[in-house]
Amino acid sequence: MSRYAVGIDIGGTKIAGGVVDEQGQVLALTRTDTPGQDAGKVVAAIVAMVEELGRKYPVTAVGIGAAGWVDGTRDRFRFGPHLPWRDEPVRDRVAEMVGLPVVVENDANAAAWAEFRFGAGRACQDSMVLITVGTGLGGGLVLGGQLLRGAHGYAGEPGHQLAVPEGRQCNCGQRGCLEQYASGNALVRLAREAAAQDPDRAAKLLAEAGSVEQISGPLVTRLAAAGDPVCREVFGTVGQRLGGYMSDLVRLLDPELVVLGGGVAEAGELLLTPVEQGYRRTLGERGRLPTAEVHLAELGNLAGVVGAADLARWETP
Amino acid sequence: MSRYAVGIDIGGTKIAGGVVDEQGQVLALTRTDTPGQDAGKVVAAIVAMVEELGRKYPVTAVGIGAAGWVDGTRDRFRFGPHLPWRDEPVRDRVAEMVGLPVVVENDANAAAWAEFRFGAGRACQDSMVLITVGTGLGGGLVLGGQLLRGAHGYAGEPGHQLAVPEGRQCNCGQRGCLEQYASGNALVRLAREAAAQDPDRAAKLLAEAGSVEQISGPLVTRLAAAGDPVCREVFGTVGQRLGGYMSDLVRLLDPELVVLGGGVAEAGELLLTPVEQGYRRTLGERGRLPTAEVHLAELGNLAGVVGAADLARWETP
Repeated sequence: MSRYAVGIDIGGTKIAGGVVDEQGQVLALTRTDTPGQDAGKVVAAIVAMVEELGRKYPVTAVGIGAAGWVDGTRDRFRFGPHLPWRDEPVRDRVAEMVGLPVVVENDANAAAWAEFRFGAGRACQDSMVLITVGTGLGGGLVLGGQLLRGAHGYAGEPGHQLAVPEGRQCNCGQRGCLEQYASGNALVRLAREAAAQDPDRAAKLLAEAGSVEQISGPLVTRLAAAGDPVCREVFGTVGQRLGGYMSDLVRLLDPELVVLGGGVAEAGELLLTPVEQGYRRTLGERGRLPTAEVHLAELGNLAGVVGAADLARWETP
Repeated sequence: MSRYAVGIDIGGTKIAGGVVDEQGQVLALTRTDTPGQDAGKVVAAIVAMVEELGRKYPVTAVGIGAAGWVDGTRDRFRFGPHLPWRDEPVRDRVAEMVGLPVVVENDANAAAWAEFRFGAGRACQDSMVLITVGTGLGGGLVLGGQLLRGAHGYAGEPGHQLAVPEGRQCNCGQRGCLEQYASGNALVRLAREAAAQDPDRAAKLLAEAGSVEQISGPLVTRLAAAGDPVCREVFGTVGQRLGGYMSDLVRLLDPELVVLGGGVAEAGELLLTPVEQGYRRTLGERGRLPTAEVHLAELGNLAGVVGAADLARWETP
């Protein structure tokens, strides 16, 4: 008999929950708004979702993924940018209320596990790196067939690595962080700068946006897909930088595969093509030798649900 | 009965070989010159060394470490900067000649394993990063209690990561590689630049060296230890850069400990102090949370012998 697990993916505005089988198929899916300021209400929303899904399938474990930091004991959620949790013992609280074993995990780690098991990395034997490009920059590392969590629970966070010495101020307090150059936010900033510097060349972008300040990521993506040269250049700049970073990762970790995911990567070849250019260029001589390829993620925004559920099944009796 | 293994560490000028017990103690040590251009002579020198040591102790396995690239099958030594080997099946050739199981490994990986098992990282449960600062920059990663070798055998190579976009030309063909800013070569270059730019301030350094071109790493280290401000600044610059890179490693891998080794690290606090400054500064907010410390390596130039031997024992029946 197949074992079913519930995967919960907590985003800034929505919580998604699904029942996932041993082949990574989502058999049922439900969504609800993320409760705002109350730590207990987030737990209650998760519990209600597990109960709802549990009436449809005999689930045996629950995995919960969210942006933020799960501590080294893997019980407490130390904090998350969209969540009211502060040192919240999420695992034990939810486990007690639903009567099932619970695993909590960083959302990009859960997505990496999903891609490794069922998505772009399913042919990998034991290693794969996922880089997620959304508003910010995230990641997850599978090494030796295991998700690398780190000694204190925060492994796989590339966003605040130093990309440019004395570079752009980041809201983390440092300067020159990678996320300032290779993320959805960077894409929008570069498009706005291009439009402000050369309004004639960016006439189409400005006309559709209404003003420099109204230029958004989805608009840049749509116009780049339609061939707009300014928007294509912006994708090129961000993608080349990302590809360069991937070559650093590959020199350090030598994985079987690098996977490019996150919301911005849904632009597909628009992002992947410059990523590959930057990757190959920066690899240099190394690229003539056996080296990881870069592939697009395959599970889209279900990766968090699938990965959290599968980790829960994988790690509980 | 304790099992003894031979560890062989092949350097550019010398081969060191030792018998190592299960506690990492070197019971016998021998050295010979590295034969120059002949791949077979290097193998013959290793075999002679194993036979010599095997007359003193009942050894059961042989580990061989050298700078360079061991392929994914871990039989062939693809190439090494100081070695005539090109796709040389070192493991099987030596094993056949000495009649013992043989393991071949990159030298910095062997040193990382030695520090993890018996040196600065012996209290670590399952993860440790070693950064070796010699003429160049090397490293080794222990994650999940295992040496990370990578899918193609070259994991743990930080030297050619991008440190400065469009920075100094590196002999690898790329620009701005970390090794150009954080290595023994970088230390010497910075000291020569300082001496050329301000000969009065660098009077002591120039007097001892004889000329800008004759400034060497050992001299810079000796004068820095004696308090010379120019040489101390050079150590400060290299150390701060190294420390910044270690914070990148920690954000990505979150190990229990970072270990600073290699010949230049034998300068001790002279290098460690600016490394720690750069590390803490670049960690920023992250540094307020539980995070790896940076410690000096403890096994010195025996790390390669000890690590190669211990890996051989660890991995063979």
